[in-house]
Amino acid sequence: MSRVMIHATVTVDGFMADLDGGIDWGFGLPSAPEDGELVRRVCEEIGAVVGGANKTQTIEDGEIPYGGALQVPVYLMTHTEHEPVERDGPTFTFVVDDIRKAVRLAQQDAGDKWVSLLGGQIGRQCLALGLVDEIQLHVVPVVLGKGIPLLAGLESQLRLERLETEAHAAEVHLRYRVLAV
Amino acid sequence: MSRVMIHATVTVDGFMADLDGGIDWGFGLPSAPEDGELVRRVCEEIGAVVGGANKTQTIEDGEIPYGGALQVPVYLMTHTEHEPVERDGPTFTFVVDDIRKAVRLAQQDAGDKWVSLLGGQIGRQCLALGLVDEIQLHVVPVVLGKGIPLLAGLESQLRLERLETEAHAAEVHLRYRVLAV
Repeated sequence: MSRVMIHATVTVDGFMADLDGGIDWGFGLPSAPEDGELVRRVCEEIGAVVGGANKTQTIEDGEIPYGGALQVPVYLMTHTEHEPVERDGPTFTFVVDDIRKAVRLAQQDAGDKWVSLLGGQIGRQCLALGLVDEIQLHVVPVVLGKGIPLLAGLESQLRLERLETEAHAAEVHLRYRVLAV
Repeated sequence: MSRVMIHATVTVDGFMADLDGGIDWGFGLPSAPEDGELVRRVCEEIGAVVGGANKTQTIEDGEIPYGGALQVPVYLMTHTEHEPVERDGPTFTFVVDDIRKAVRLAQQDAGDKWVSLLGGQIGRQCLALGLVDEIQLHVVPVVLGKGIPLLAGLESQLRLERLETEAHAAEVHLRYRVLAV
């Protein structure tokens, strides 16, 4: 069965975005060919995406997970029913409140590829439910001070196993396995 | 002149300790000889330590920075005057409120070695004042969810330059230069 990862770019202090959701602090950093190669490698392994409710409000004219670079099914959590939307290729399916169901549907679509969880809230919910196999982080050399956290806010402690660590230019790429509590 | 670094062990979500100040989540993790060697190398370069006010309340019977392994002068921030204390070798000098003064005194003692800043509050204060040259982190594979943050809480954004990244067993060792704002 398809496995599930939290996949995110974070600051050294663990934020995914500033308080307004902005990520422009991540632009213009030194990058090496190996950085692009690694991100490409990770993305090629993704077969479906589950995103948080905040993305559903702007789906018609808002941001697309991975900037549209991934032509894979996207499941978005929502609080009200919404017809599926096809946009620039991928189908966006809306799932009302039931995160387990969203992950299960995404896993079916992903086959032997990975399901990528986007956003802190969705990631922490799935961690709490024991649905996450791995965490893959791209750490940018920025301290935001305040912002939207990726992992902070989780209700209970979690032990990880370090799998891979790689750095070439500005970013540090970290891959962890989530250990059973 | 002696240079100044923030030196800390942190979780993947950026905490130095749990909400009670406990750090026992960091015990029992896999370790390689290279991890100990790296920490020894960093510690050998430290010529003085500046610690936060919370440490002053327990100085007579409380914790000693670096567990007493470093025989270097320690400056501790406090809100009231306190005579210097000598304990197990190092002298603990108390500095009332003036963090710039504490860092300057520590730099004089450290000579051509580093001043190590301990604790989140002290580190963030010194970052805000532009007193910090480098940040050295040992990241343990734990997600705490909540706790005492090292860098989160800083008032303004900060750009870093990645200098070194090293990983052998559980920990990831990150060394960053603090760039001028």
